[in-house]
Amino acid sequence: MFKSLVLPVALLGAATAAHADEGQWQPHQLPQLKSELKRIGITIPAENLADLSKHPMSAIVSLGGCSASFVSPDGLVVTNHHCGYSAIQRNSTPEHNYIANGFLAKTRAQELPGGPNTLVYVTEKVENVTDRVLKGLSPNLSGKERHEQVESRIKALIAECESDKAYRCSVPAFHRGLEYYRIKQLMIRDVRLVYAPSNHIGDFGGDIDNYEWPRQVGDFSFLRAYVGKDGRPADPSPDNVPYKSKDFLVVSAEGLKNGDPILLAGYPGRTSRYKLPSEIRFARDVDYPAKVGAITADLSVIAAATMGNPNYNVRYASVVKSANNVLKKTQGLLDGFARKDIAAIKDVQDAEFRNWYKQHGSGSKTLLADLDAVIGSDMAVSRQEFALNEATHSDLLKSARTLYKLAIERQKPDAQREAGYQERDVSFIKARLTRLEQSFVPSVDQARYAAALTRYAKLDAKIHPAGVDALLPAPDALDTLYKNTQLADTAKRLAWIGKDPDAFRKSDDAFIQLAVRMHDAANAVEERRKEVDGNLERVIPQYMAAVIAWKKSLGKPVYPDANSTLRVTFGTVSPYSPRDGITKGPFTTVEGILEKATGKEPFIAPASLSEAIKAKRYDVFKDPVLGTVPVNFLSSADTTGGNSGSAVMNKRGQLVGLNFDSTYESITKDWYFDSAITRAIHVDIRYMLWVMKEVDHADNLLKEMTIKYPKK
Amino acid sequence: MFKSLVLPVALLGAATAAHADEGQWQPHQLPQLKSELKRIGITIPAENLADLSKHPMSAIVSLGGCSASFVSPDGLVVTNHHCGYSAIQRNSTPEHNYIANGFLAKTRAQELPGGPNTLVYVTEKVENVTDRVLKGLSPNLSGKERHEQVESRIKALIAECESDKAYRCSVPAFHRGLEYYRIKQLMIRDVRLVYAPSNHIGDFGGDIDNYEWPRQVGDFSFLRAYVGKDGRPADPSPDNVPYKSKDFLVVSAEGLKNGDPILLAGYPGRTSRYKLPSEIRFARDVDYPAKVGAITADLSVIAAATMGNPNYNVRYASVVKSANNVLKKTQGLLDGFARKDIAAIKDVQDAEFRNWYKQHGSGSKTLLADLDAVIGSDMAVSRQEFALNEATHSDLLKSARTLYKLAIERQKPDAQREAGYQERDVSFIKARLTRLEQSFVPSVDQARYAAALTRYAKLDAKIHPAGVDALLPAPDALDTLYKNTQLADTAKRLAWIGKDPDAFRKSDDAFIQLAVRMHDAANAVEERRKEVDGNLERVIPQYMAAVIAWKKSLGKPVYPDANSTLRVTFGTVSPYSPRDGITKGPFTTVEGILEKATGKEPFIAPASLSEAIKAKRYDVFKDPVLGTVPVNFLSSADTTGGNSGSAVMNKRGQLVGLNFDSTYESITKDWYFDSAITRAIHVDIRYMLWVMKEVDHADNLLKEMTIKYPKK
Repeated sequence: MFKSLVLPVALLGAATAAHADEGQWQPHQLPQLKSELKRIGITIPAENLADLSKHPMSAIVSLGGCSASFVSPDGLVVTNHHCGYSAIQRNSTPEHNYIANGFLAKTRAQELPGGPNTLVYVTEKVENVTDRVLKGLSPNLSGKERHEQVESRIKALIAECESDKAYRCSVPAFHRGLEYYRIKQLMIRDVRLVYAPSNHIGDFGGDIDNYEWPRQVGDFSFLRAYVGKDGRPADPSPDNVPYKSKDFLVVSAEGLKNGDPILLAGYPGRTSRYKLPSEIRFARDVDYPAKVGAITADLSVIAAATMGNPNYNVRYASVVKSANNVLKKTQGLLDGFARKDIAAIKDVQDAEFRNWYKQHGSGSKTLLADLDAVIGSDMAVSRQEFALNEATHSDLLKSARTLYKLAIERQKPDAQREAGYQERDVSFIKARLTRLEQSFVPSVDQARYAAALTRYAKLDAKIHPAGVDALLPAPDALDTLYKNTQLADTAKRLAWIGKDPDAFRKSDDAFIQLAVRMHDAANAVEERRKEVDGNLERVIPQYMAAVIAWKKSLGKPVYPDANSTLRVTFGTVSPYSPRDGITKGPFTTVEGILEKATGKEPFIAPASLSEAIKAKRYDVFKDPVLGTVPVNFLSSADTTGGNSGSAVMNKRGQLVGLNFDSTYESITKDWYFDSAITRAIHVDIRYMLWVMKEVDHADNLLKEMTIKYPKK
Repeated sequence: MFKSLVLPVALLGAATAAHADEGQWQPHQLPQLKSELKRIGITIPAENLADLSKHPMSAIVSLGGCSASFVSPDGLVVTNHHCGYSAIQRNSTPEHNYIANGFLAKTRAQELPGGPNTLVYVTEKVENVTDRVLKGLSPNLSGKERHEQVESRIKALIAECESDKAYRCSVPAFHRGLEYYRIKQLMIRDVRLVYAPSNHIGDFGGDIDNYEWPRQVGDFSFLRAYVGKDGRPADPSPDNVPYKSKDFLVVSAEGLKNGDPILLAGYPGRTSRYKLPSEIRFARDVDYPAKVGAITADLSVIAAATMGNPNYNVRYASVVKSANNVLKKTQGLLDGFARKDIAAIKDVQDAEFRNWYKQHGSGSKTLLADLDAVIGSDMAVSRQEFALNEATHSDLLKSARTLYKLAIERQKPDAQREAGYQERDVSFIKARLTRLEQSFVPSVDQARYAAALTRYAKLDAKIHPAGVDALLPAPDALDTLYKNTQLADTAKRLAWIGKDPDAFRKSDDAFIQLAVRMHDAANAVEERRKEVDGNLERVIPQYMAAVIAWKKSLGKPVYPDANSTLRVTFGTVSPYSPRDGITKGPFTTVEGILEKATGKEPFIAPASLSEAIKAKRYDVFKDPVLGTVPVNFLSSADTTGGNSGSAVMNKRGQLVGLNFDSTYESITKDWYFDSAITRAIHVDIRYMLWVMKEVDHADNLLKEMTIKYPKK
């Protein structure tokens, strides 16, 4: 599964060589890649792909953590089932179990509210604001001072942009601070659930098949963006009307075959392609093993604490699912590092770069030494952050800390508050603190916290943040702690928003008291992070500029690491060999569903689906080579978490698939793109259309979309 | 691994439809298949393949349980490493560990004796003797009488043939008694070890990879047949000279590619393709589960009884290996039956046949009813045989029973003795009783017997053979039993050969006493088997005649089930899909060895091998498509146990590979040939030649063989 995973903050390192399929390109870079696009057979002009106001880029949207696209002029959005899951879940009841049975609105009136977590972001403008962020910064600032000045300028740029309340703006760093772009996104906040198949189709194979191939998942769902009658974003209301999307993708039921080119557009979350070898070794030998240990332990605590209580199981289902996803991804990274010595590959590239820099580098003479020093300090802080995370691993404590920090920040003028605690963030904080009630049980939280404190105590004392140990509750004090808090009550938890810091200090709520008590020590870690980040932001851009110059000298364009902004990647439909003598993909078929179906979760095939397959009712969706309906396929496109739901387009820019995952062997691509084994997994649009027609009879939507059917 | 496995005696059932690659054909049948051979691209004339005196068939030999072929005019034989293993093992010492280090005779003088279990059989004549076996048998005989009369005629035919002591003859039944052929084989009994690679090459992957794909095994070894100076087989002697083989295979280093046709010739052991659905259900639901249970239990007893004693481990290594092989095969059959309802497929075919027979059958009106009855009685006796096997599951008891039975049979004139106990069999019995010393420890045998008696006691009392229970030792009597026997001593064991039955009856050896005591009850089971076999031999041939007529009416030739006689099969190099979205094969490469090598058994790649691979010293053995040296490959040829070491030939009859195994999904092919998933696994001859040249420097053998190298 492919929702954006936030991996540990890390530095940029030596650059990797660009392969044919490697590259999460900023749209404006695509004209540089014209010959490559032509070579693989893309016919849509690179200039069109560079222009966000033109088709097909203007049809590509973000859901915040997921990607999607418009597929009708009436704001109909297609994305993954797992991206629409929150909207499906919040509308499901024991009587109307839309998770198990699927949901189809036959009319617009039947479309259901997606809830506060279901938003559509339409990127309207991307402008290079590097000068406004960096120009005139004194070279003599401390790391922390520099970081705060940059943050302050960014906040001003955002505030300016968000003067029109219809928009959400951001100023992410590219190349880790070499460039800054301001992204202006229309934020549509009335988004409704239109159609989702049963999770037996949309999540067939579940966690067991996550990151695996072969897959046979109908991981798709449909939402619709609604706006006020004036055409502008509005709070959810029955009076709202469908958003008239300026652009939408034409759907091609003609399908693809092995070797065909594809384009993929979406919002990849985070990659670490420019890491130094020392960074990889830190992740491989220290950070990831520690995380795998902590998550594994936490999962077994949750399992024990929820055992035999179906109610508790439901509450923690999404926590467990998400932890398993992170665990599988992190373990996959470790397995990948064990399989292929990526650090050694990077050693070679790093040595080549350093050698080049010594001869041709136009920057600081001390750059390489500065780089190594600042990366060393980043690792040290990362260890402390890991320890602090264990020391505060309680949902109640985290809530109390957020609330107290918000109260402190709100004492300042909005522009001076820390990012994430400004007025523009309050509704998100509120949504998060509300959502907790769906995934929280005090006794389970207590068990998790007790175990985390034990783990914390066993960590090397050198990484314990100064002053924290003395503030932590003793194991036998936890009962009292959980008895003397009212934060488990949603209304009481939310009531703290707006209170001033003094109210916290005077409170007798045990968790509020603990948050207040820990604030200074925890804050000190955050201050150290700012100092390190400021130094990183000073050194890394110089390093990246040198890397880009080096690459340019080799005739290679450089794409920035993923940062949740709109990117385009391209590749071809292709199988891969995970090991000698075995080939995987590129297609699976509906027959594979029956082959895998055991009748037990997560391998249940709905009867209507099985019957259609057994009767070979393939309709026009039969692939001429496979002789049946394809379900999922592999491509060599460069994706990562956040690319879930991304449009997979054919050479003409027509929708032919939805990205939803990548193979287990591909997980290390976040660090190093190995084109031989890296494959993204897509839903074949023919399967989606076939399910809509033969299984769920979503004729209204098939009619609404513009579908190019194969010639008879 | 693919040495002949004797699976339970079973009956012929409904015929399966012949597919392109299905069929273990008697050579004389090949002219019927001319168009099929031509279609797949075989250019060697079918008439040549039908003639055992012509090339290439006259180069194909049997090792007894394995297949092989001559590859030089001086009696040089190539077969699998696991087929030459007994010769390698008996010459290995701690100082000269040929198992781990391999062995290469650089001169003929260095070639090592293969020992009494290493024999080469050259089939010289195959004649249809059906009339001489069956003509004039009274229709009124009981099953036992009929069986004994047939056996008596067969023995006479064999004795006649073996008047020349250079030959070993046999008269196996084809189509379960519809036809009988007399096979006359030159038996060469001085066979020497010439060359074997290290088991790290020859058994890379060991038991873990057994029946699996991908494989990277150099499963080959070389032997040489020696004869007396007169050119006739002789007892091993330094004076013997290499056998001047009339024919030998030319080796082609040009290799094969995906889709190329192949021919495969060898001695498949046993298949059950013509079973009735009821037979399959009996195997699936009763017989195989019981066997899996017994073997699994026995293996854990051996593991416990040998634990911590390396000496004991060595003694039981081959017993365990062989039991694991049977277990994996039997479990594979059960898994295959669970995956695909072969009984249901056979139900359909059986119904079609029965329907045809009712309308067109020219045989007995009661045939179908007779068939079902006789099969029912076969199942009943099979259960008793299984129980008796548990009740006598001790190597000492089995030895004592063999010795006593031999003594009894030797009271009769040779021609009247039971098959297996004639003079011609004594040397084999002696070799077997001698070999026991390498794979036996009294305390382990006692533990195995104790556990088997416990299992026996838990079996349904209905299948306990009459009278046996009272004769078995009580659990607390086993210590005394093992203390009061001298059979564990090889010399004393062998000394019983030649003694008369009275000596046994008077003996105070506890196991001899037990064998004497059990003789009548155990013999009664054997008598019942003869009665059933006689009835099977009467009814099944009529059934098979009808099946052949039915098939003929459909234009399909029928091949007989495998019976360890020379057969030819053909197919193409081809991958397969074990499940949706995955393709396996058709080739593996030397790089796959490094990929799998862990440095721990059974995945150790010798340094010289690793270095040659890393240095890409591919020589002329580089495949133009793969860009490296292929190791193993898959074909659709129809093989089974006994086909180990079979020559895999290209369309011109040149040696391009050695058969050594089949994939796990193929195991059910013994019952039903599913051409979509059935694949045999072969060593690519290019890997063999490459190892000989680059790793082991077997230049003398490369020079001795006639090798066609690819044009530069």
